[in-house]
Amino acid sequence: MSSLYVPPPKCLEKRFVAPQRHMFGPGPSNVPPRILAAGAEPVIGHMHPEMFEIMSDIRSGIQYAFQTRNKVTLAVSGTGHAAMECAIFNAVEPGEDVLMAVNGIWGERAAEIAERIGARVNTIRTPAGSCFTNEDINQALARHKPCVVLFTHGESSTGVLHPLDGIGDICHRHNCLFVVDCVASMGGAPLYMDTQGIDILYTGSQKVLNAPPGTAPISFSERAWQKVFNRKTKPVSFFLDMSWLANYWGCDDSWVIGLSDWSDLLLGRYHHTGPVTNFYSLRESLAVLAEQGLENSWCRHQEVAEYFHEGLENMGLRLFVKDKNVRLPTVTTIVAPPGYDWKEITSYIMKNHKLEISGGLGPSVGQVLRVGLMGCNSSKASVDMVLEALKDALKHCHKSRV
Amino acid sequence: MSSLYVPPPKCLEKRFVAPQRHMFGPGPSNVPPRILAAGAEPVIGHMHPEMFEIMSDIRSGIQYAFQTRNKVTLAVSGTGHAAMECAIFNAVEPGEDVLMAVNGIWGERAAEIAERIGARVNTIRTPAGSCFTNEDINQALARHKPCVVLFTHGESSTGVLHPLDGIGDICHRHNCLFVVDCVASMGGAPLYMDTQGIDILYTGSQKVLNAPPGTAPISFSERAWQKVFNRKTKPVSFFLDMSWLANYWGCDDSWVIGLSDWSDLLLGRYHHTGPVTNFYSLRESLAVLAEQGLENSWCRHQEVAEYFHEGLENMGLRLFVKDKNVRLPTVTTIVAPPGYDWKEITSYIMKNHKLEISGGLGPSVGQVLRVGLMGCNSSKASVDMVLEALKDALKHCHKSRV
Repeated sequence: MSSLYVPPPKCLEKRFVAPQRHMFGPGPSNVPPRILAAGAEPVIGHMHPEMFEIMSDIRSGIQYAFQTRNKVTLAVSGTGHAAMECAIFNAVEPGEDVLMAVNGIWGERAAEIAERIGARVNTIRTPAGSCFTNEDINQALARHKPCVVLFTHGESSTGVLHPLDGIGDICHRHNCLFVVDCVASMGGAPLYMDTQGIDILYTGSQKVLNAPPGTAPISFSERAWQKVFNRKTKPVSFFLDMSWLANYWGCDDSWVIGLSDWSDLLLGRYHHTGPVTNFYSLRESLAVLAEQGLENSWCRHQEVAEYFHEGLENMGLRLFVKDKNVRLPTVTTIVAPPGYDWKEITSYIMKNHKLEISGGLGPSVGQVLRVGLMGCNSSKASVDMVLEALKDALKHCHKSRV
Repeated sequence: MSSLYVPPPKCLEKRFVAPQRHMFGPGPSNVPPRILAAGAEPVIGHMHPEMFEIMSDIRSGIQYAFQTRNKVTLAVSGTGHAAMECAIFNAVEPGEDVLMAVNGIWGERAAEIAERIGARVNTIRTPAGSCFTNEDINQALARHKPCVVLFTHGESSTGVLHPLDGIGDICHRHNCLFVVDCVASMGGAPLYMDTQGIDILYTGSQKVLNAPPGTAPISFSERAWQKVFNRKTKPVSFFLDMSWLANYWGCDDSWVIGLSDWSDLLLGRYHHTGPVTNFYSLRESLAVLAEQGLENSWCRHQEVAEYFHEGLENMGLRLFVKDKNVRLPTVTTIVAPPGYDWKEITSYIMKNHKLEISGGLGPSVGQVLRVGLMGCNSSKASVDMVLEALKDALKHCHKSRV
């Protein structure tokens, strides 16, 4: 007689098979077979010598993708949100002033995260779809005197690519760290961490990199690392404590010697069990980027975006971001077609074209449709598919709400 | 002419192929092809209707594995450490008293996590390899009056399976939540969350479940949920905030209606991008457990462990945990063979038998060898392999340190 009270669930008897779908929303994007296959390699230990080599390769790949020589460069075991928390948890201490640049949902999230750990949160705000000028930024820094300021390079909720040139210098003149969220832009638009004076930069695996969600590249400049090193309090999270993570990832180069004596490594380095197979696929996605060339990837995303935007305007649709120069090439925001229910459009396209596009998020809810063409999805063929699907939807969905 | 300063790294030109290895350390364990294949299914959106079905299946699977009917049951997007933080971050507010039962490394980690968020941390301690009596616990609760107490069911650093019967009642008499870490024991030893009065229970995907590391099942009792619900402060982590996570995972059953109107769901539920492919493999691993039967799995782990322990004693090796009744069936701690360098043994076995066993961790460093036989690795054939490897190592490694 069984002593179990909760029986095995029937729902698990059915085998799950994922549908093939064009992932043209703001992420995750499609994962090419090559990267999926890498993630299905046999699991080895999170501290086996081969794993440390993979992690070392990943660090090199991130340094390339970020254009940085920072030693403290690694992948957080979590998605972009975990990286955002990692950046803020480590760079900020309770009671310190921070400045969050809010021009979409990500600045709001960053503000919420900083508030939770007891920072004094200041914000500057600009309407969804627009940017800050360097003069705005200079004034805000003079007024609030924050020790950390955070900008979102690719604002996927509004479709804005925020210019970064010059902000690093302004921040450093005000003795402030320059933190940048490039989750939606990295690999799809020019970004030079070192040259642009970015102190903390992070992204996610599931956008231009086309890896499954679950890892988040991050890098700390020497200036940022000094602030972390001189903290008076421990970061609230052990899991995201960069001192531990930097040690686990061998950012002090101690591995070079250590690899020959595997057992010794295990004693000092154990922090948490890294997501082994996600590291496999992240490494492969960085290899793809290196193979294609970063600048080629930037150019392709820009060309494809322009081709897409032209096609949309030819259909009579309007782009949410008016200034051509600050349109995010990876995620396009289209003004929700007047008279239509945007939800009917996205549902129609999902059902009839097996294609994901999405509605707005945060400040853009109800106002826009969002289309992400990232990494392997950034091609004219994808654009043609989306335009076709949109035309079809506008023909068949109800137009009744004018 | 290129404007890139950091060139593409050469190391990424080489394709990575993972070695086949017997993963008989304390985790991660081997992942069977069926579960690896599930994780290589095409990526769909983290908020597509099929994804919500998978997450619903995962919740049912965890309820079965934990033997609970708790609504607030889900998988954290991280490894066991993230789940430990999730439990403590949500259950504890700054300034509150907690009691950590330390009989190995996990209690220490829990204490460190609670300290970081400003809890008043009390500990009870017992030597590595031993347990607390219910009388010890009762006295400690009376003395410290904590609102949360944490025990480790499977202490993988020492090889102890801590008895749980009766502790729930003691905790509740003292108006205290009973939190249990079952990362190393779940599926390998009897565990009844509801009957044993456990208020928060969490595990990892990479042990008995044989899924890749990266997700961590967790469940909150109604009593625990009430405490979370009535918090005066927000948890320090947005990423691990259970109110958001419970909403994302549909723990309030709102999905049942929602699945037919997909777009509506997206508005309210977006929290973070879940690790889609890790959820695929977690679901599959729970399906395997349901198929085999939880009690069969418990029995097999116990039988295999006893067969292993007998084999070790027949070789003249000694078990670190003296009391047979509290030996963890999933991870065995062997007293490091006198006169040998334990590191030479583990390295020899890794090199010559492609087999991972590990040394100690935390309080057991230098004192033990640890062998994990979990999930698909829990078989007499695996035991024979380990015994063979150990015999070979003891023959060929240096015996010089007596």
